[in-house]
Formats: sequence, C-alpha cells, structure tokens
Amino acid sequence: MRFVKPSKQELELLKGQDIISTKNLTREQLELILNTAAYYEEALKNKRRLYDMDGKIMSALFFEPSTRTRLSFEAAMRRLGGSVVSLAETPRVQTSSTAKGETLHDSIKVIDGYVDVIVIRSPQKGAAVEAADAADRPVINAGDGEGEHPTQALLDIYTIIKEHGHIEGLKVALLGDLKYGRTVHSLVYLLKRFGCELIFVAPQQFMMPPEITEELRNEGVKIKETSDLKEAVAEADVLYVTRIQRERFSNTEEYENIMDSYIVDENIVAAAKKGMVILHPLPRVNEITKSVDAYEGAAYFRQAHNGIPIRMALLALVTGNVCLK
Amino acid sequence: MRFVKPSKQELELLKGQDIISTKNLTREQLELILNTAAYYEEALKNKRRLYDMDGKIMSALFFEPSTRTRLSFEAAMRRLGGSVVSLAETPRVQTSSTAKGETLHDSIKVIDGYVDVIVIRSPQKGAAVEAADAADRPVINAGDGEGEHPTQALLDIYTIIKEHGHIEGLKVALLGDLKYGRTVHSLVYLLKRFGCELIFVAPQQFMMPPEITEELRNEGVKIKETSDLKEAVAEADVLYVTRIQRERFSNTEEYENIMDSYIVDENIVAAAKKGMVILHPLPRVNEITKSVDAYEGAAYFRQAHNGIPIRMALLALVTGNVCLK
Amino acid sequence: MRFVKPSKQELELLKGQDIISTKNLTREQLELILNTAAYYEEALKNKRRLYDMDGKIMSALFFEPSTRTRLSFEAAMRRLGGSVVSLAETPRVQTSSTAKGETLHDSIKVIDGYVDVIVIRSPQKGAAVEAADAADRPVINAGDGEGEHPTQALLDIYTIIKEHGHIEGLKVALLGDLKYGRTVHSLVYLLKRFGCELIFVAPQQFMMPPEITEELRNEGVKIKETSDLKEAVAEADVLYVTRIQRERFSNTEEYENIMDSYIVDENIVAAAKKGMVILHPLPRVNEITKSVDAYEGAAYFRQAHNGIPIRMALLALVTGNVCLK
Repeated sequence: MRFVKPSKQELELLKGQDIISTKNLTREQLELILNTAAYYEEALKNKRRLYDMDGKIMSALFFEPSTRTRLSFEAAMRRLGGSVVSLAETPRVQTSSTAKGETLHDSIKVIDGYVDVIVIRSPQKGAAVEAADAADRPVINAGDGEGEHPTQALLDIYTIIKEHGHIEGLKVALLGDLKYGRTVHSLVYLLKRFGCELIFVAPQQFMMPPEITEELRNEGVKIKETSDLKEAVAEADVLYVTRIQRERFSNTEEYENIMDSYIVDENIVAAAKKGMVILHPLPRVNEITKSVDAYEGAAYFRQAHNGIPIRMALLALVTGNVCLK
Repeated sequence: MRFVKPSKQELELLKGQDIISTKNLTREQLELILNTAAYYEEALKNKRRLYDMDGKIMSALFFEPSTRTRLSFEAAMRRLGGSVVSLAETPRVQTSSTAKGETLHDSIKVIDGYVDVIVIRSPQKGAAVEAADAADRPVINAGDGEGEHPTQALLDIYTIIKEHGHIEGLKVALLGDLKYGRTVHSLVYLLKRFGCELIFVAPQQFMMPPEITEELRNEGVKIKETSDLKEAVAEADVLYVTRIQRERFSNTEEYENIMDSYIVDENIVAAAKKGMVILHPLPRVNEITKSVDAYEGAAYFRQAHNGIPIRMALLALVTGNVCLK
Repeated sequence: MRFVKPSKQELELLKGQDIISTKNLTREQLELILNTAAYYEEALKNKRRLYDMDGKIMSALFFEPSTRTRLSFEAAMRRLGGSVVSLAETPRVQTSSTAKGETLHDSIKVIDGYVDVIVIRSPQKGAAVEAADAADRPVINAGDGEGEHPTQALLDIYTIIKEHGHIEGLKVALLGDLKYGRTVHSLVYLLKRFGCELIFVAPQQFMMPPEITEELRNEGVKIKETSDLKEAVAEADVLYVTRIQRERFSNTEEYENIMDSYIVDENIVAAAKKGMVILHPLPRVNEITKSVDAYEGAAYFRQAHNGIPIRMALLALVTGNVCLK
C-alpha cells in the first residue's frame, strides 16, 4: 500500500471501536489507520494547529510504568488539541483504587464517565478486553502484559511503508528473541497481511516456535530461518531487532558467547543490502551499537517518533473526531 | 428542592470562598452548588464546549493517593476549558518539599502564586483549613483524613435529587460502618438540612454514635435504628451503602458471620420498596454483589459520574468564572 | 539595569538555544530574559490570556522529585497557552526506560520527537548537557545535581531588580552554606556581572572557598567576609539566606550551637539596613523564623512566584514564540 488521504466514509470504519489487537482489524481498517496517520503527520509537518479533539479528554491509565508509550499517547492527544488525565503507577507502589480491592471493571466504569477515550496499559494479559467490556467509551490497548501491544505493531508497519515507500513483497528479517517475544509474534501476522517475506534470525534456542512458522507457511508466507545474521542482512529490506533478555540465559558467559554474534554493528551494516532499514521497538541496550545510529537506514528513532501520528490517528478515529481538511 | 438555573446575583455567593466542609455552607450556597452542577451537566449533555475557566490553572495537590477523586477534579477542570498541574504522591514515597521539612503553610504559599485554585487531599485532618489560611486563592478540600470530604457529600445529595426528582421527605437508609464512617457522619447532617428521614442499618457494634442520633432527634429528624437490612429497604427511598473495614473485626470468621447478612444482593433488591435507589461512595469490594448492577435503581456509577458536574460547579463558583448562557 | 520591553530583534538572541548554565549567557541574553519576564508578568497582571505557545508541548522530565520547580515550569507553560507532558520520578522508584538500561541519550532522542521543548531535572551533574546533545529541540536545565540550576539564579536576580528597582552597586549579603552550596556559587558569578558588592556571612567552616573569593576579587568585585550576621545586615541591601544541612555537622549539639547565631529573626530584622530585602530559594526549615514573614522586605514567597514569569520567558524565547503586543 501507499498512503492516500482517507475518505469521509472510511472514517466511519473505526468510530466507537476498541483497539485491543491488530488481529481483528480488517484490511480496510488497517489501511484507514495508516492513511490517517500519514494525513496527521503531514499536518504536523505543515505546522497546522489541530482542533480535532478540542474539548475532549483522554485518560491514560498506566497500571505499570511505560514512560515512552504514555508520553507518546499524551503528546498525540495534545497535538489533536485535546487534554489528558493520567494515572502513572509505579511498580512497587500501587496507588489506584485497585489496591483497595476494587475490580478493574468498577474502576473503568467510573472513569468511563469522566472522559471521552480510555488508553490502558497493564501487566495483566486480558486487562484491555476487560476494560473494553466495562467502558462505553472506546478503549485503546497500550500493552497488556503477555497479550498484545497493537499500537507498537501499527507504528512498525507505518515506519516500513514510510521508509521504503511501500511494503508488499519486502523481505523483513526479524532478529532476537523470536521464541518469547510478544512484539514479534504480533508483528509477523501483520507482516503476512501486507505480503512480506520473512527471515527469522535467532540462536537456535530462541527461534520462532515451529507451530507459528508452520501456520504462516501454510498460508503461503515465504519464510527463511537462519542463525547467521550476515546472511540475513545480505538480502533483507528491513531488519527488525529485538532484545533477548539476559535472564533467559543460564549464565552471563553463555549470554555473551551467543549474543556477540547478533550485535548489529558497523560490520553488519557493511554487509547489508543497499537501503536496508533497521528498526527496533526500543529501549535498546547493546544489541545495536551507537556507531550504527549515523547509518542512513537506522530508522529506530524515526520509528519511535511515528508513534505520534499513529496514536493521533487511533484516538481521533475511534472517537469519530477526524476533521479532514 | 428541584434544580433551577442560578441567577447572576446568586453566583456571587461563593466567589472567593474556600470549600472546607459542608457544615458552614448556607442553604442558599448549597442550592447554588447543586443548581450550578445541574446547569453544567445539561451543558455537557448538549456537548457544549465550555470556556468558563479558559486560561485558568487548578493545582491538584494529592498528598495521599486517591485516583478517583483526583481524576474527577482534573476532568472537571478540563471540561471547563481550564488546565491542571498535579502532585500525586504515593503512600510510601513522599516526594514533595514537605519531605524536606517544609511546612504545609510554606508549600501552599508558594503554589498559591502559580495557580488560580487549589484542590488539596491529605491524610491529615485539618490540612485543608491550614492550606486555606496560607492561600489567597480559593481552596477546595478533597478529603482531609478523619476530617471532611465535602465534594463527596455534595455529589451524594445531587445524585439523590437527580434520581428522585426531589429530596425533601425522602427516607434514606444508611448501611454499614455508621460508627467510624466519616462519609456517613458528614452526610447525615446534610440530609437533615434537606428534610430527610433517616434509617440507620448496622450491626450493633457499628451503629451510629448515640450522641449524634440524639442531637439529630433533638433537632426534629425522624430516625429509625435497625439491624435488619430487609426491614430497612422495605420502606427506604434511598439505600446508602458503605463498607465496614475488615480490620475493624477481631477475626475473619466474625467478619464473615456478621457481614453476610448485610450484603446487598438480589434478595435485598427483591425486598426493596419500588424505586429504591442504591448509592455507594465506591470503591466497593463485596458489600454489593455485581448482580445488583443491572438493577435500575443501582445508581452508584451514575453517582460517581456526578462528581464531574459537582466539581465543575465548585471550581467555577469559587473562582467567579461561571458563564451563564 | 531596569526592565524595558524587548525589541523584536533581541528576541532572536535565544531562539533555538539550550539553557544549561547562566555562565555562557551574554549580558544581552541575560537582559533579554529579565525583560521578557517583566513583560510577561505585566501581561499576567493585566489578566491577558496568552497564546504564545498555543499548540506547543513542553516535556517536564524530572528524574528526581522537585515539586516546586516542576509545578512552576508546568504552570508557566500553561500561562503561555501551551500544554505539558510530565515524567515525575520518585526517589526510590525509577520508572522510566533508563531503569531498563537505556541511556539518557536514547530516552531524549525519542522524547525529542514528541515535543517542542524539553525541561530536565536530574540528580546527575552533566545530565542537561547530555540531553542537549541528544535533542534537536531546546533543552532547559531545571537542576542537574551538583551542577547548575540556572532558572533559580535568574529568578533571584529578577527578584532583586523588582524589589529594589535596580541592581547595580547593591550590597548583597549571602548567608549559610557558602562552601558547598551550589545555588550560591552560581549566584555570585551572576551578581558580579550585575556589579554587586558581596558580603559573605558564614561560620568559619562554611565560608566561601578561598579560590572563588580570590578570583572574584581579582576581577574587581568588592567582597567582605564576616561571621557576624548583625554586622552584615546593617549595611546589606539584600540578604540571601540558604540552609546549612544538619548532616554537615558531626553532631546535633554542634549544629545547634553554631546555627543559633545565624537564624534570621525579628532581632536581625530590627538590626537591618532600612529597605533590606530577604531572599531564600526555599524550602526553608527554621533558618528564617515565621515571625519574619510579616516584614515588608521578606520577599522569599514573591521570589518563588517570580519563577513563573522567568520560566515563561525562557520557554517562549528558546522556542521563538514570544508574541509582543
């Protein structure tokens, strides 16, 4: 796909909807989100002051800390001219009513009457669904533990299209913890829907679970599996890097032995296909060296910034507030 | 009383005032708050974008966590077109200057110069009075420990009038911890002023203190005391449920034995007078079963939502910013 | 200097600049900040609703708690018509991505894409410089540990000019921990640039480090050193009080013995030169008695309030958003 300005009718496709997962979004809805994001990004570039959500309130309910995601949602709402009320809980200090024994259902029922749209982040899988059941207002999932993180997957896709001008047929190499990585699992299903070829790059013990690879192949996705990062980048259009938690290894020595050959550094960049784009959901620690930041294709900070137009699009679409100009 | 639109002169009645307690509010001031809340609720219903507090700043100083109350005040201020600066302290982590040995007086003197209205929540009884003494700007008490929580009492009264269309002469049953419950004590004096009959429903050891009951009776309030919830709901127009803290009992067995007969469930609803309204300041744990939520008279979530117009009314009245249309 | 309205050309002097320290500000830039602050204070006094930063976003990144400074920056941004996204970390609970091993550089690179101006407070000296290196947007240092706190020093100077009508030639006595006090060190260099005479008042073990006194004298600053507070206030136009941390003393007895003669109370006020202005960066504990608050020259709360126009000036100047009227 390439970005086009959405039509007035299309804007109705997400009005009043919750955004819990990317799985249940239709292709039309997905394209609408991406096109609306591109529309808003253009508006921001032209320094247009937006009033699309003027007078509206978003509640950011972060039951676990995620500064980046929270600030991104809050800034997106502000860019739309709206305002924000926030709950930013700290890991060991739970201060909301849930600490007093209140159910999430009751908390959401109350807050639902205060605001126009609810963004929820929780360490509990299924929390976003529970919130959506309780709320009349639209709910957007900003990550629910081992569950989904749809806005991350959407901004990943958006970034690929922006960086390459299109997405269909691109070869996307996914590097890192493909076995346990939630982000990666959500992403591969979305890449499939946009007709990408996949390259899985991981140490053997962190390779994509065979049932997922099998399922994708049965649906016609071209997949290559390898432990050799250089081999992968030689043909990849996109390298999506994720972090393998140190805790997944039995000891530090094993960790260092294995991970050394998966660090993205100047040598990897030198071996890469011309124009290869490097993505990372961030935060990174050492899996991409700082020296790579200067490489033209190092798009991970631009990727993070794309969270703003994507979240603007979602907030305005689900509340029915996109004002086309 | 029934809601009427306030007049321009009446709006002056609370200008520049602090809201520390409901006790020192005149009947005219009380009615003004309720009428202004109704006026704002109508405006919200008609999706009118309000600018009454445009350019003004509210500071929400929460020296103890109370997510519901904080978000409600913040959302109220946003609905009026104003903005907010917040201090949301966590219970074990005190981060404000008070932790450095500064008096509340000094903290308030400083913040008073930053904003247009101060909302304060504190675990210390008397903190709101102390803040009001230090500040030139109006101060609103959002709960001061064992002291008062006037905005809760006001939204309770507002809810009763909204649900029944009037309040005079209604029989209000109060259930739960009538002995130690701060909310209930504030509420009964307010109910008295609106001419309600009272039914106190509690296990013997949690019954309303005799000196309060005595005082109210001397002032002509009709009061019935009972330990039988079914008997109470058979004649009550309103059932106001509060929670008895488990810690008030010597052991869990005693707690369960006694509390079982005070749980509001379908049987209680079936035994209730037609049209009985159930209120609860929330959060609830198990004192009202979830099955009751579907009952038409279960008004506790609507009650929580009424916090928005009540707090809008207070913020705009004390700062002299109500713009009648 | 006396305040004058800045000219359009002067407004360009700080556009796009970071504010890390007062040291590298030219005299023209210093005067521009002070004049713009006076301009904004006048606007606030006239209850002009400002739109200078309408549609713009400030991020307040407080990696250590500082309620006063954070609320002051946030309120300043609101007064300019702008909006705010905040990170308010608590001392023992680090919740930002930095806790996951992310560098400050990476965190800032991301947030830089969300907002228009970055305010940073950190316990780490040099954090503001690091942030400024990472960000394309202007960065304002709101205190970096043992480093600088330029907005405090600027509002101190601003207060002296406001209280006395001018600053050149004034005798400024600095009282307290002159040895370790960061605020005082920044301030003396700034006072030098405005042609003040200095009086250092401290117990011997907390006297200004000789190398600083030497340096200032070599540059022609008139300096007097004394341990006698009464002697100092007899000739001072300004008394700038700071706190000596109790922890700096080996025991409480020593602390009380020494500090007793440095408490600013009615006796000190009675001994003071007519019109002497008392300043304090706050919070105070007991180094100024509450009875002094009523003294006309007790300007420390006015000083704190001056944080608003100073921070408004900085925010609007570095982003190029001052709209002269």
